[in-house]
Amino acid sequence: MEAEIISVGTELLLGDVVDTNAAYIARKLSLLGIDLFRKTVVGDNKERLSRILKEALDRVDLIIISGGLGPTEDDLTKEAVSEVMEEKLILNKEIVKNIQQRLPSKNLPEKGIIKQALIPSSAKIITNELGSAPGIILEKKSKIIISLPGVPREMEKMMEEVISYLSTKKEIRGYIQSRFLKIWGIGESQVEEKIADILKEQSNPTIALLVGKGEVHLRITAKFDDRKVREEKIKELEDKIRERLGDYIYGVDEETLEFLVSSSLRKRGLKLGVAESCTGGLLSHRLTNIPGSSNYYNCGVVSYSNQAKSELLNVSSSLIQEKGAVSSEVAKKMAEGAKKAAKADIGIGITGIAGPTGATPEKPVGLVYIAISTQDKKMCQKFIFSGDREKIKWKASQAALYLLNKSI
Amino acid sequence: MEAEIISVGTELLLGDVVDTNAAYIARKLSLLGIDLFRKTVVGDNKERLSRILKEALDRVDLIIISGGLGPTEDDLTKEAVSEVMEEKLILNKEIVKNIQQRLPSKNLPEKGIIKQALIPSSAKIITNELGSAPGIILEKKSKIIISLPGVPREMEKMMEEVISYLSTKKEIRGYIQSRFLKIWGIGESQVEEKIADILKEQSNPTIALLVGKGEVHLRITAKFDDRKVREEKIKELEDKIRERLGDYIYGVDEETLEFLVSSSLRKRGLKLGVAESCTGGLLSHRLTNIPGSSNYYNCGVVSYSNQAKSELLNVSSSLIQEKGAVSSEVAKKMAEGAKKAAKADIGIGITGIAGPTGATPEKPVGLVYIAISTQDKKMCQKFIFSGDREKIKWKASQAALYLLNKSI
Repeated sequence: MEAEIISVGTELLLGDVVDTNAAYIARKLSLLGIDLFRKTVVGDNKERLSRILKEALDRVDLIIISGGLGPTEDDLTKEAVSEVMEEKLILNKEIVKNIQQRLPSKNLPEKGIIKQALIPSSAKIITNELGSAPGIILEKKSKIIISLPGVPREMEKMMEEVISYLSTKKEIRGYIQSRFLKIWGIGESQVEEKIADILKEQSNPTIALLVGKGEVHLRITAKFDDRKVREEKIKELEDKIRERLGDYIYGVDEETLEFLVSSSLRKRGLKLGVAESCTGGLLSHRLTNIPGSSNYYNCGVVSYSNQAKSELLNVSSSLIQEKGAVSSEVAKKMAEGAKKAAKADIGIGITGIAGPTGATPEKPVGLVYIAISTQDKKMCQKFIFSGDREKIKWKASQAALYLLNKSI
Repeated sequence: MEAEIISVGTELLLGDVVDTNAAYIARKLSLLGIDLFRKTVVGDNKERLSRILKEALDRVDLIIISGGLGPTEDDLTKEAVSEVMEEKLILNKEIVKNIQQRLPSKNLPEKGIIKQALIPSSAKIITNELGSAPGIILEKKSKIIISLPGVPREMEKMMEEVISYLSTKKEIRGYIQSRFLKIWGIGESQVEEKIADILKEQSNPTIALLVGKGEVHLRITAKFDDRKVREEKIKELEDKIRERLGDYIYGVDEETLEFLVSSSLRKRGLKLGVAESCTGGLLSHRLTNIPGSSNYYNCGVVSYSNQAKSELLNVSSSLIQEKGAVSSEVAKKMAEGAKKAAKADIGIGITGIAGPTGATPEKPVGLVYIAISTQDKKMCQKFIFSGDREKIKWKASQAALYLLNKSI
């Protein structure tokens, strides 16, 4: 089955809002093995949308539209769909009642509710549990048009029903399954080098390298009807890649570094203290994004000034003067100090130069020391990161989480 | 002049990467007064790209393409452009030399460099200062195709040249100018209510409301040939809106709350100390994203545990026991403690419940107290924010920055 995605909305067309819906829908279609040919963005303009729909119906069997289902006069998706599919829009009283009962607080005007309850006569309705506009599936003359709201969380929720609907179609064969390997510590081209021969001989499963934020993602995708075969083939290739990349692979699929660190701390019942300078609170922010982090994250100190390093973390000012605030010695003392101040089992200390100012001939922008102190180990590692201030902060927080994950 | 944007890349089509380039280009075109009709995403497939180009040339005068200019066999944009514009690709030796001289470290294979130096015979070259692939402007038979690399920072840099090129075209009239008002503290619908009559009678300048991250942006757009008229009309409308929204407007255009707080601290020579609990380091992270923040940001404490609140911030444990860690009394003491620990002029204390756990019948998820202590004032404000953990953290950091900005 071949498909196109159409995103409707003047705010998307003019770039005021970035279209993330199309990417989300594309990923879901690709997992179903549906070939995607084209994605189009069009403004709130019925004539132009109708034209795009007609063109797309000439090329493919399935069109998924997001946006243009709202209660205002600007919202014209159903009108355009009805026109090109030669359907009438019929008022569905069930939907009117449903919106009035579920969303009384929204105080929607009658006119708007009625607009949202107009449905092409032969369409199947997708209930919107999170908002007012229902979605529709319209199948006619071996073509399918699916229309979903533009609000991302409403659309995402309704895609579940779309996926189970599409899964029943006999044209959808050769199920696809993917696995992501999360890689930290080497760049894309180095990964490519290490697995050059594997990349060369790939067919099914295929391998794709994707650049993440301060990390690399390797996606293995297998396309076989049989679930067991798919899983075996992926496992086989994953093992082969793991032999080459070893510890650079820190996790799989949805796992993030902060999630893994948090899980390990929680499992082992350990508490963490953080002292960060150049990352400016980012490490603590990432760790406390994980629900329940108060179970293992005791406290953090963002010790920008030397005085804070001395008074809150007990790093002696003579050491700072002698070795400099950005040094392995100070990083180690910060880790110790964080552990002690937080009454924790593990302490981490980060000091560096995020730039653009603060560099010296010996200490360039991007120089970062990360030290970890556990009950039985002390270590410190030096890094030189490239990029602007925010990139260096992010990369340093990545390195810190990676080292923490290895140390726990 | 009417335009379409085409983004080329299988990673964009399949949703592995979200297409931010098209939004960027769209915003720039809209400021030039160029009408955008459609944006399309297509994979690395020459035949499909050529088809899209032919269709678009039938509809509009200007096409801007991003992506598909790289050194590999997948990169086929110039090939497709040459085909539909009936051009030959000619090797430009200057470009070969330039790439070899500028990027020796990249060690690009000869074949790849040559591919990037093939240019349609009558095209104008846009130099790529940040990467290897040059852009092209091809004007022929009153149609213009502009082709830029897909790497965002390279594309963005090269758009400067594109804009000055397009500005010379006589078809471009009625210059557009926009001004953004940044609003915190009320939602989109409340803003709408407050300026309902102004919204109703708008024509030129027009008003658009955009939902930002924990804030609302109001865009005023004027379209007049004369710069002075544009500016006057915008000013007039801005004044009218300011009368209604008053202090809810915290800034304009590119200004962010952290930028404004940083500027005020620096200007007044004041130092800041931060104590945050539920925001978990996010406030410090946002403040230290501003280059030069070490001039006014002394230190921060992420006091998740009660022990940290007592020992590092001098909040008495009996007060915590009596009033609870999430209380205005504790927030105030945290602000005091932060000011003292950082030896600063201003202290801020944030305590709250980011959820999903930790709520009690009296203290729901989203309850946040923010206290500020300056040399001559003390204040504390209570908020109840909605959303998930990360949203509540973000909203609390927004509120903290807004209050700081007002207090300095």
